[in-house]
Amino acid sequence: MVKKQVPDIVVARLPLYLQTLKRLEKAGEYNTSSKDLGARLGISAAQIRKDLSHFGEFGKQGTGYAISYLIESLEEILQVNQVWDMALIGAGFLGHAIANFNGFNSHGFQVKQVFDSDPEKIGTEIAGFVIQNSKNLEKVLKDNHIVVAMITVDAEHAQTVADKLVNAGVKAILNYAPVFLKVPENIQVQYIDPIIELQHMSYYL
Amino acid sequence: MVKKQVPDIVVARLPLYLQTLKRLEKAGEYNTSSKDLGARLGISAAQIRKDLSHFGEFGKQGTGYAISYLIESLEEILQVNQVWDMALIGAGFLGHAIANFNGFNSHGFQVKQVFDSDPEKIGTEIAGFVIQNSKNLEKVLKDNHIVVAMITVDAEHAQTVADKLVNAGVKAILNYAPVFLKVPENIQVQYIDPIIELQHMSYYL
Repeated sequence: MVKKQVPDIVVARLPLYLQTLKRLEKAGEYNTSSKDLGARLGISAAQIRKDLSHFGEFGKQGTGYAISYLIESLEEILQVNQVWDMALIGAGFLGHAIANFNGFNSHGFQVKQVFDSDPEKIGTEIAGFVIQNSKNLEKVLKDNHIVVAMITVDAEHAQTVADKLVNAGVKAILNYAPVFLKVPENIQVQYIDPIIELQHMSYYL
Repeated sequence: MVKKQVPDIVVARLPLYLQTLKRLEKAGEYNTSSKDLGARLGISAAQIRKDLSHFGEFGKQGTGYAISYLIESLEEILQVNQVWDMALIGAGFLGHAIANFNGFNSHGFQVKQVFDSDPEKIGTEIAGFVIQNSKNLEKVLKDNHIVVAMITVDAEHAQTVADKLVNAGVKAILNYAPVFLKVPENIQVQYIDPIIELQHMSYYL
């Protein structure tokens, strides 16, 4: 597969390019350049050109990039020119915040199933979703062909949930629990970790 | 200031090194190597050695790094060998989740003040904090010398909050609202954005 030959560090930057391009489009811009994008992202223009060159020719010397075309291309490359159904495991405060967030849809994702193991929560609703019993996680995810999931349970339960998700066929896990997950190599995991971001900033204080 | 000469991309990796080292220490390890750290983080050993060389000599050829010493050094470099008081603006579900999270303290941070503008929330408690009126944000932050803040309000209110924080003397903002913040150059802003992480993973699906 050709895709795998692109360094992951390059792939990781593509969503940032897409986000910035969408902001520019929303602000009424039609064209941009690697220099302009770079200045907005704190990345060199050369790096941006090199990153994009892995996937094709998107701009022209002198005229730069047509924003809408580059957005379309990046959405295709990142496979968010479709909407991925997601499962959300953990209906605590964080789960509530995520279930209620309506910004996923326009970026390629939507919460479709919400689970918790707390008998008091199971059967109640958040953001229009009936909270389902975590016991049924594997069956429901398999039946609904869900391959993307978010973990918002406590640190101590996150690995058990991750194991279940992997068994259920999930291929991409966004983990909010402050714990490192052990998963097979073919499973993607990303972490949402405020501490990493805070420590990055405290360096400069 | 010597610090400013280290590329930010290097600074951004230090918290990841620290996190991994702390995990190793917790697992009972005493020593590690750039090769081992690199394998755990998907970063080359050479890159790790180069990153650390900006700050001094931490390991020896052949014997690697003493974990506790490297942890101590990184905590000092990142200035998390102390605990920074934080303000949390926005006491919705996300604010609740963060106020209740007890993992900040051991990593150099603690929530100290919680604000919201909703009259129904002001004066009530979350996680032992009385929710204060956002109107008083600037005075309270100045009085308490708070320079780190987290924004967990809606996208539409985030910029107004950020402006207030900057006026109050805040130097580092962790923004959970899905919006780009305009702040003066000397203010650090980092973003918590699940969409960026999800799109990174969907590339591989």
